[in-house]
Amino acid sequence: MSSQVLLYDVTLRDGSHAIRHQLTKEQIIEYAQMADNAGVGVVEVGHGIGLGASSLQIGKSLLSDEEMLRIAREHLNKSLLGIHVVPGYATVSKDISKAIDCGVDVVRVAAQCTEADTTEQHISYVREKGRRVYGGLMMAHMLSPELLVQEALKMESYGAEGITILDSAGAFLPDDVAERVKLLTASLKIPVGFHAHNNLGLAIANSLAAVKAGAHIIDGSICGFGGGAGNASIELLAAVFEKQGFETGAHLYKLLDMADRAEELFKVLPKITSSSIVSGMSGVVSVFSKPVARAAEIYNVDPRDIYFELGRRGAIAGQEDLIIEVAQQLAGKQSE
Amino acid sequence: MSSQVLLYDVTLRDGSHAIRHQLTKEQIIEYAQMADNAGVGVVEVGHGIGLGASSLQIGKSLLSDEEMLRIAREHLNKSLLGIHVVPGYATVSKDISKAIDCGVDVVRVAAQCTEADTTEQHISYVREKGRRVYGGLMMAHMLSPELLVQEALKMESYGAEGITILDSAGAFLPDDVAERVKLLTASLKIPVGFHAHNNLGLAIANSLAAVKAGAHIIDGSICGFGGGAGNASIELLAAVFEKQGFETGAHLYKLLDMADRAEELFKVLPKITSSSIVSGMSGVVSVFSKPVARAAEIYNVDPRDIYFELGRRGAIAGQEDLIIEVAQQLAGKQSE
Repeated sequence: MSSQVLLYDVTLRDGSHAIRHQLTKEQIIEYAQMADNAGVGVVEVGHGIGLGASSLQIGKSLLSDEEMLRIAREHLNKSLLGIHVVPGYATVSKDISKAIDCGVDVVRVAAQCTEADTTEQHISYVREKGRRVYGGLMMAHMLSPELLVQEALKMESYGAEGITILDSAGAFLPDDVAERVKLLTASLKIPVGFHAHNNLGLAIANSLAAVKAGAHIIDGSICGFGGGAGNASIELLAAVFEKQGFETGAHLYKLLDMADRAEELFKVLPKITSSSIVSGMSGVVSVFSKPVARAAEIYNVDPRDIYFELGRRGAIAGQEDLIIEVAQQLAGKQSE
Repeated sequence: MSSQVLLYDVTLRDGSHAIRHQLTKEQIIEYAQMADNAGVGVVEVGHGIGLGASSLQIGKSLLSDEEMLRIAREHLNKSLLGIHVVPGYATVSKDISKAIDCGVDVVRVAAQCTEADTTEQHISYVREKGRRVYGGLMMAHMLSPELLVQEALKMESYGAEGITILDSAGAFLPDDVAERVKLLTASLKIPVGFHAHNNLGLAIANSLAAVKAGAHIIDGSICGFGGGAGNASIELLAAVFEKQGFETGAHLYKLLDMADRAEELFKVLPKITSSSIVSGMSGVVSVFSKPVARAAEIYNVDPRDIYFELGRRGAIAGQEDLIIEVAQQLAGKQSE
């Protein structure tokens, strides 16, 4: 058990960010078949932000969550079907209930790392329905290890059967991950997981640090297909875990074949840009990059200075108004 | 001193592998100017394999080593000009003497990690000429930490002023690097360096592990521009080292600007393919990938099985004959 790692494949969920949520039926069918055949543990499917988030404001997905889940369900035999749920977007009575009707096996209820208490109703509902339920703590770099444990304990008390910390801005160094995962595994009775972003080129190393510190659930996507700088490449995770002596139950050659196919299937693969590096260094999510670039142009300031100042202020997604304020202040300082 | 890292930029040397040694005068001028302006410590220039290696058999470079060095020399003010030398390709009297005439500041004399004794004449010649000289141990994953130290001690005794271990096949995990660098720093009087390849997505993490274990010289290239899966991205190294509290003396924003420019300047940036992953896992350099693919097709065996068997046999560059032998044996086993 101690050397066993569950590969949690977020390609058909986090990956949808990379193509503005335009995943097609054909992509879902082919990918679900390949992932199932390769022995991936969980295949997460749906809108990039999570269940119920599809909208003109956030980004309308080509297919509804229900359509995506039903398509994937038909093509998964061994792999579990997962859905990502963020309270505020998904309601218990309507959205989660419908997702369970579509045959979802695993629900991950995720919140900003300071807001675990928003997940109680969702987590307990999934438990009552007899499906597996995990908790997710997003932007986990913004809390100290001790406070992160407090939030995780809340989710455990609501009935979560595992807690994954999400490095949403790709801001962690390997030591940061190891410290948090060690404290979490020591404090919780349930398995701990880790979800990487590759802003600083450390997605694989951070995932490895997590596993060595006791994590048993690791998120990845094919070739890192995901928002911004992408996630941890699932084929690299399998290769590196095998080399380090951990078992994933996945077939390495089949994952490598999937990686060979991914570029043609999804058209666009993630890469690390100077903007994603600044996002990772400052701890600010890369969804800010376009509005930051616009504000930088308008106020004639360096977009990277805006990012670092947003990081100092602890900006999180949804606080885009801060961008203009910061840009104005930086411009003011320049002209003093 | 303990937190100071020398960024050793191999873009205009290792990077030349990525474009079949066709670096142009314009590319060298623009890149040297940018790197110098960004405060990079050493700019290494020349044929990818090393000084004197340009030939029809190995790959003919567009410009001679002498031409490349003279062009770079003119555009470097603060950064030192470096050259990579592998005994067998470069002679002391002709090649190194000429390189020094071109204004080279730093010569790195590199050998397969078991063959440090081939570097004695070259290292002592450079010392006599009053230029800085480092030793390089290639394919360093093939030796135990203890034996690697023995080889490094030889180079130190010849007069090397620093020893870099090169993970030529991108085969190391962070712990492997840390263990070797710790033992080397404890055993040598001179600084230790590390050169990563990104086959397993660990180039940045391995470089970070090296620095944390006491290394002071770290190789990188812009956006990882280099052979196979590429090297450690120098802009990511600067970002991650800064985040971890190490000083490089380089200007982060200028490195990020260089990264923004690199794709247009060099046309092709490295990516991790399933083939480079197998190369890293098996510890066999990715220059084998084309002949392995050919042999796999002829004998109808899986190219990945060939790679892993070559790894078990400890194949190194120059032993391409082994590929056919291994492919035939695997085909024989299949038909038994």
